[in-house]
Amino acid sequence: MPVSLDTLNSASREEFVAALGGLFEHSPWVAEAAFGKRPFATVAALHEAMIQAVLDSPRETRIAFLKAHPDLAGKAARAGDMAPASVSEQAGLGLDRLSDEEYETFQRLNAAYLTRFGFPFIVCVRRQTRDAVLASYEPRLANDEASELARALDEIAHITRLRLAEAVEGPGMPAVAGHLSTHVLDTYHGEPAAGIRIELFEVGSSGRARIAEAVTNKDGRTDAPLIHGKPLRRGRYELVFHTEAYFRRRGVTLPEIPFIGDAVIRFGIDQPEGRYHVPLVMTPWSTATYRGS
Amino acid sequence: MPVSLDTLNSASREEFVAALGGLFEHSPWVAEAAFGKRPFATVAALHEAMIQAVLDSPRETRIAFLKAHPDLAGKAARAGDMAPASVSEQAGLGLDRLSDEEYETFQRLNAAYLTRFGFPFIVCVRRQTRDAVLASYEPRLANDEASELARALDEIAHITRLRLAEAVEGPGMPAVAGHLSTHVLDTYHGEPAAGIRIELFEVGSSGRARIAEAVTNKDGRTDAPLIHGKPLRRGRYELVFHTEAYFRRRGVTLPEIPFIGDAVIRFGIDQPEGRYHVPLVMTPWSTATYRGS
Amino acid sequence: MPVSLDTLNSASREEFVAALGGLFEHSPWVAEAAFGKRPFATVAALHEAMIQAVLDSPRETRIAFLKAHPDLAGKAARAGDMAPASVSEQAGLGLDRLSDEEYETFQRLNAAYLTRFGFPFIVCVRRQTRDAVLASYEPRLANDEASELARALDEIAHITRLRLAEAVEGPGMPAVAGHLSTHVLDTYHGEPAAGIRIELFEVGSSGRARIAEAVTNKDGRTDAPLIHGKPLRRGRYELVFHTEAYFRRRGVTLPEIPFIGDAVIRFGIDQPEGRYHVPLVMTPWSTATYRGS
Amino acid sequence: MPVSLDTLNSASREEFVAALGGLFEHSPWVAEAAFGKRPFATVAALHEAMIQAVLDSPRETRIAFLKAHPDLAGKAARAGDMAPASVSEQAGLGLDRLSDEEYETFQRLNAAYLTRFGFPFIVCVRRQTRDAVLASYEPRLANDEASELARALDEIAHITRLRLAEAVEGPGMPAVAGHLSTHVLDTYHGEPAAGIRIELFEVGSSGRARIAEAVTNKDGRTDAPLIHGKPLRRGRYELVFHTEAYFRRRGVTLPEIPFIGDAVIRFGIDQPEGRYHVPLVMTPWSTATYRGS
Repeated sequence: MPVSLDTLNSASREEFVAALGGLFEHSPWVAEAAFGKRPFATVAALHEAMIQAVLDSPRETRIAFLKAHPDLAGKAARAGDMAPASVSEQAGLGLDRLSDEEYETFQRLNAAYLTRFGFPFIVCVRRQTRDAVLASYEPRLANDEASELARALDEIAHITRLRLAEAVEGPGMPAVAGHLSTHVLDTYHGEPAAGIRIELFEVGSSGRARIAEAVTNKDGRTDAPLIHGKPLRRGRYELVFHTEAYFRRRGVTLPEIPFIGDAVIRFGIDQPEGRYHVPLVMTPWSTATYRGS
Repeated sequence: MPVSLDTLNSASREEFVAALGGLFEHSPWVAEAAFGKRPFATVAALHEAMIQAVLDSPRETRIAFLKAHPDLAGKAARAGDMAPASVSEQAGLGLDRLSDEEYETFQRLNAAYLTRFGFPFIVCVRRQTRDAVLASYEPRLANDEASELARALDEIAHITRLRLAEAVEGPGMPAVAGHLSTHVLDTYHGEPAAGIRIELFEVGSSGRARIAEAVTNKDGRTDAPLIHGKPLRRGRYELVFHTEAYFRRRGVTLPEIPFIGDAVIRFGIDQPEGRYHVPLVMTPWSTATYRGS
Repeated sequence: MPVSLDTLNSASREEFVAALGGLFEHSPWVAEAAFGKRPFATVAALHEAMIQAVLDSPRETRIAFLKAHPDLAGKAARAGDMAPASVSEQAGLGLDRLSDEEYETFQRLNAAYLTRFGFPFIVCVRRQTRDAVLASYEPRLANDEASELARALDEIAHITRLRLAEAVEGPGMPAVAGHLSTHVLDTYHGEPAAGIRIELFEVGSSGRARIAEAVTNKDGRTDAPLIHGKPLRRGRYELVFHTEAYFRRRGVTLPEIPFIGDAVIRFGIDQPEGRYHVPLVMTPWSTATYRGS
Repeated sequence: MPVSLDTLNSASREEFVAALGGLFEHSPWVAEAAFGKRPFATVAALHEAMIQAVLDSPRETRIAFLKAHPDLAGKAARAGDMAPASVSEQAGLGLDRLSDEEYETFQRLNAAYLTRFGFPFIVCVRRQTRDAVLASYEPRLANDEASELARALDEIAHITRLRLAEAVEGPGMPAVAGHLSTHVLDTYHGEPAAGIRIELFEVGSSGRARIAEAVTNKDGRTDAPLIHGKPLRRGRYELVFHTEAYFRRRGVTLPEIPFIGDAVIRFGIDQPEGRYHVPLVMTPWSTATYRGS
């Protein structure tokens, strides 16, 4: 049950820290610092005040704060020794269910990162596919320390913005959600294509997993966006549109094996809070797509 | 080493039958019958004469001829008891290396077919993917006997046309080859896209296998068609175009995870002797394809 | 000032006929007949009752009613001898400002039609371009009399539905309006194209006339549809998108004479009450369009 | 009748200059200078030698040479006082048949140019539409003198390359021709569109003129390119494809006024010796084009 911003604005220091102290990993002092900046007109302003408290703290405090974070896919995940929010976030990406080989890869990369920078590798896992997380170690290991310190705090901002958006309700919620939608236009009949079954897959280096399924309505759209109300995980995806059944149902003569049977669009998502509209324009002999709006 | 049509036209009956008797499964009488129609102006005419001999034979002869064919993926394949041409053809599709489960499926379908029509299921496997072969049992089992007798002889015509095209050389070769090609147009720069790596996959129900690979030349085409000089196997395919590396090489600013990274076209081939031209028209934000010419 | 449906439902017979008697050309008896069917729940139901009164009248009455209509672009238009609604409708299409040659063409076609069917050629001109009106004489002259009588009354229904929609206000207005809109997607940048100037032309056999102009907003759309709130005139159109200025403004290097400078889409509108969405998907080297939704 | 390069390589000085002296306006000394560089392996090498002779001449000679050229669309054109090659070239663009107003415009621009640079405005008119010529005055008037002297000699190179390509035949002809072609793909049927009538218009500020017409063959192409064997005039063009008749002929049900009736592609040509392939990919409800190859 989220607490309301009004309640927080009129809460005692003790109540305030009790409500928000867990958002920043093992660091209730961040909530303490924000308490003094009340009242907050928006939930986003509350989040900014907490982040500012971190940025304003001495360098050693910031480093210590980062060190308080668990390793990604690390021993803490296996041993159950993480803040509750981290447990749920890492589990969402399956980081608590890695094969031994994958676990070793993460251990090796985490160790390299820790050696290089002196604090653990931090990333907002709810904004990433597992492949995107793995791919991000190499460029980040190449950064200089100042850049990487800033980057780690930027990831913290994303992590805590999401936690706050779930913990507090009120005006001016921070923007944490992306949008993925599609639309099917049938240029054989000159109409939106109704009743097309669509599958959405996350495509990783080791396979692909279906993460959504829908059927187009009479406007050629799905009744709800394929993903909405949460960040889009950065990564690679495939949309598969079952067009053969659609055209056969409408009585169009197709070859036994049609030229376009299952239309496939492979695309990438780079911005977790972005708006991705991915239409399909098609006939039994052609397909086209583009980033729409 | 193919024999020339001229040589066949002037050969003795014995030599003629020695050269061509093996083309029609265990049935040298077909070559015997064709011998009387010499000379042949084209290799295609020779093939037509042989097929006509089969069609002109009494019904019981035709049935017996069909019965002389081995089961598809059957015991003969495992036991090494097939005409040499059949051995090589079935091996091309991997029908000699089936899992036990797949073997059982074929056995069950073959048995159903044999029970229904009194002769084995015959298909020109060099014109089919394994999935297409499996998918063809059901509609053929639903045919009436006359249709299926005609269909079986039509498959024989395809099988022997391919064998003849390899055994004989001369003017008027029969048309046995299909053509699959592609072309990449970059509408960001308004030019053919050179240096794009392309992979072609056969897509089956149980996975996909890469069957060709190429790189585009400065006209955006591949130096040779992706498939040519033989029948296209009926089935489903994917072309994957590695466009991300191309655009990065040309200095185009892309997101870390580009919208179009690997462009994918999934398409079907229905006509083994057809001409399939499958172009990709693309930018970092759009793709289009169609059956070209 | 439209009268409200409520007012009409409670009006005296005299007031009712005074308000609606002019809608059906020189035929107040139609309003008289509808009076008896009150009350009407919707404006559309009122219209249907009036049309039904015409359809229920004896054949000679219907013919006489049709004969009460003025010639299209005829002497009445020149002499000022038409019902006021007809004057305005014919003027909208410029039928009162024809050249002598065009006037002669209409006179000749009108005379042929009158001779053939015994009543004047009737068409709802607000749903047609001038070219579409001219093109419709020939197929209608080829109809049999029963079809053409039905067609004339169908055109009357369109004419009076439009008149009623302006004369009366209330719940359940009849559907008389079409919709023409556009959208510009820039697949060079992967974004909607903002600030593109768009011109809409009606294209006739004797030239083309600009009928709307707009600039795209940041979503690549125009703030209002290009045409809405009235029927679309059946005919041929051109959309011209000034893309050269857009790309130059964004710093894209183009040839001195760009490949795509003014992008042109020529299209036809067949359904006056239809929804036509005509997007442009483009780069400096490509354009695409389709009937969208 | 062109003279062969062999003949020129073995001709006397007098014969050589008689053959080539007229190519450079009123300046046989250019041929004289080239005579000394014989023999030439290619026609292109001969042209380069002549151009080099101009470039190597003293500045005052080059200026005098430029001054020997007639005004574009000037008094000389009206009075018949130009070198024969210039007469024909200027007539090709209609510069000898200008309205008085157009004549005045050219006179004004020519005078401004002459005042600014001291030599007449020179352009290779066979590589330009009239609109492109007119549009080029303004940017060239803004050049500095050195740039414009180089530009004028570059135009001379184009003019004389074209003249030489007609006057001489032999190995290594200079590249003077462009290429404009099209291709129509019907993605409703998945085939090239045969029998489509195509018109090519040059689009100018004051109207448009049809300059070519063709019908697609069974491969969806025209038997010959729309323009080939000569430079493409820089300018703006429209291709009109009469698709309505095609689809009706094939039995496709279209609205009385089809959405795509005449498909129009408006495009620009910037490179007279370029290769422009402009395909149309279409259904009754969609069109797409791009610069192909």
